[in-house]
Amino acid sequence: MDGPLAFDLVARDGLARRGRLTLAHGVVDTPAFMPVGTRAAVKGITLDQVEALGADIVLANTYHLHLRPGDDLIARAGGLHAFMHWKRALLTDSGGYQVFSLATRRVLSEDGVVFRSHLDGAECRLTPESAIEIQSRLGADVAMMFDECPSWPAEEPAVAAAMQRTLRWARRGRDRFEAIVGGAVPDVARPTPGQVLFGIVQGGTFKGLRDASVRGTLDVGFEAYAIGGLSVGEPVDLMYEVAGHTAAQLPDARPRYLMGAGTPVDLLESVARGLDLFDCVLPTRNARNGQLFTRQGPLSIKNARYALDTLPPDPACACPTCKRHSRAYLRHLFMAGEISASILNTVHNLYFYLDTMRSIRKAIEFGTFEAFKNEFLDTYSLGQPERDA
Amino acid sequence: MDGPLAFDLVARDGLARRGRLTLAHGVVDTPAFMPVGTRAAVKGITLDQVEALGADIVLANTYHLHLRPGDDLIARAGGLHAFMHWKRALLTDSGGYQVFSLATRRVLSEDGVVFRSHLDGAECRLTPESAIEIQSRLGADVAMMFDECPSWPAEEPAVAAAMQRTLRWARRGRDRFEAIVGGAVPDVARPTPGQVLFGIVQGGTFKGLRDASVRGTLDVGFEAYAIGGLSVGEPVDLMYEVAGHTAAQLPDARPRYLMGAGTPVDLLESVARGLDLFDCVLPTRNARNGQLFTRQGPLSIKNARYALDTLPPDPACACPTCKRHSRAYLRHLFMAGEISASILNTVHNLYFYLDTMRSIRKAIEFGTFEAFKNEFLDTYSLGQPERDA
Repeated sequence: MDGPLAFDLVARDGLARRGRLTLAHGVVDTPAFMPVGTRAAVKGITLDQVEALGADIVLANTYHLHLRPGDDLIARAGGLHAFMHWKRALLTDSGGYQVFSLATRRVLSEDGVVFRSHLDGAECRLTPESAIEIQSRLGADVAMMFDECPSWPAEEPAVAAAMQRTLRWARRGRDRFEAIVGGAVPDVARPTPGQVLFGIVQGGTFKGLRDASVRGTLDVGFEAYAIGGLSVGEPVDLMYEVAGHTAAQLPDARPRYLMGAGTPVDLLESVARGLDLFDCVLPTRNARNGQLFTRQGPLSIKNARYALDTLPPDPACACPTCKRHSRAYLRHLFMAGEISASILNTVHNLYFYLDTMRSIRKAIEFGTFEAFKNEFLDTYSLGQPERDA
Repeated sequence: MDGPLAFDLVARDGLARRGRLTLAHGVVDTPAFMPVGTRAAVKGITLDQVEALGADIVLANTYHLHLRPGDDLIARAGGLHAFMHWKRALLTDSGGYQVFSLATRRVLSEDGVVFRSHLDGAECRLTPESAIEIQSRLGADVAMMFDECPSWPAEEPAVAAAMQRTLRWARRGRDRFEAIVGGAVPDVARPTPGQVLFGIVQGGTFKGLRDASVRGTLDVGFEAYAIGGLSVGEPVDLMYEVAGHTAAQLPDARPRYLMGAGTPVDLLESVARGLDLFDCVLPTRNARNGQLFTRQGPLSIKNARYALDTLPPDPACACPTCKRHSRAYLRHLFMAGEISASILNTVHNLYFYLDTMRSIRKAIEFGTFEAFKNEFLDTYSLGQPERDA
């Protein structure tokens, strides 16, 4: 189908693509990393800080926001943009992954999923239709279809069944989305008229299932396509192979979103295979656990070797944390359990991710992506040098 | 004694004073509120944020920093300013109050205090001399003498004995400080050569004891004087009375510091009685507990009445939190336990305190302090108006 989605490919380098995705609330330069703002907040920092770090788009979550504070409340506030006071683009995940990873007493049927809220045990229900209605009320620029996410590892027949059900759900979700757009569901608020819907390809690590899922999802037709069900524990080489195999079959003219990926290396390897959009909790979650991403690989700030280290976390980094603070001070904050440890580490890690994406985009424009990637990986694999304390 | 302390009184209005205190790392405009940065960090926000909020000076704590990360480590990093990368003024409390409120298995003698660390139970010892040595190594602009802080309420003989011991400790601390300044204690680092030492007047709520403490402390001689042992649970009217009674006997030409105060009302009432410097955990601690200070009194953001409230916490406030976010969003963040709830609430509360001090300083300059104070107190006592949700 031809949706309202504008995606201009401004440069190519091998399979890597440099694009410009125009959404209702702004332009997203791709390849892009989307910071995760599960509960309408990026954990550890404020939206002023997310903005200053240069994020074009933030991801929020249907499952979490439906449970608290509720999509009705957010719709009454004028939608997620108004509620958060975030003026750039937003994407809402459909909640499928969270229902399967967080909810308890989950009963899955062709209709959808009935489950208990992880917050208070209240019985809830998500279906392909209701996930779309919730996302319509939230009004992110991009909504995602509701899918069934098998855990990894799983046997091929189970993955095949989930993939087939996901296709049937894709059509139901697409139909409901079009009904809402067409005004046939008047009781569902629609704060972002330009909202677009992305499909999700499933099929685990089975290439035959991925092929069938691509064909079926394209047949339903979405404004763009995501690859779900990867980055869930499978070996990284297998992830890269399946992601590349799947991406090659997705429309060249539409952005391709690898959901839940990943490490800095994952991002480079996936860009090299033609992926454009990414999200992952790693930079924010690991920040709160004291792991800082650097050009020379991850650094665990609680390590005693940093107690007297006057260097910034990454001497080559221009983020506010590295411009001001030493490893010694950051270690002290972390050991003392200060909130500012989480803030400063999150600022650094998100800057590192967003800045790496900026470098990737430039490299693609200059036709030097392969060289950039090799140099990045070489340095990243060195690890932190031994230093005197 | 005539220390290196420069304190210019630029305006007076009744007993209220508008001063300019020049310390080694910068000028502090008084009356001033000093945000509390106990462990070399202001809880809930980064030093970039503290700086942007306009704090001239931050307070850190001898007891906490001695235990972790240790004053030796901080001295090796070049002192507290270098360790924190904070270029403005710092003041270190002596640790007396913390030893008496936090440490366990405390044994008090004329020599000092032997206690167990609240972190790991390790045996530690603080004396008037060691508290000065630790503070010399930390190198704040202002060090505080080590005092004995009786809890409230206490009988007059006990308060008198503590006050008398505090006077003997004052002389011992002063002597050690001068020995360090004079180069007679070469093994103690001194990263801030212009460091000054403030004395502390004790005596509880007994005016006679306060009078004796003032005389004795002035006799020892310090660059300036603080009033300790108030804001520890006594009725506020008694606190104001004793603070005013004591302040009137302190040198007019030196700043007067009321330790541990207080609420916005406490600050106004104390400025009206000639006090110049204040510190308190209220704005930061209460922020983390969801209490926001506003012109119309405190606001508990977790209250259900704010679930759909699109107003900022204080509609008359120009802080980054109020400029961007609604009570509804802040309530959601608080209920969800997001770190950004602590950040945004702390930014607002500290801005409110620092901005109130700016207004106080201007009012003194204009000779309108009494009118400002009355209007502030009238509005503050109104409380939050009832609104439709």
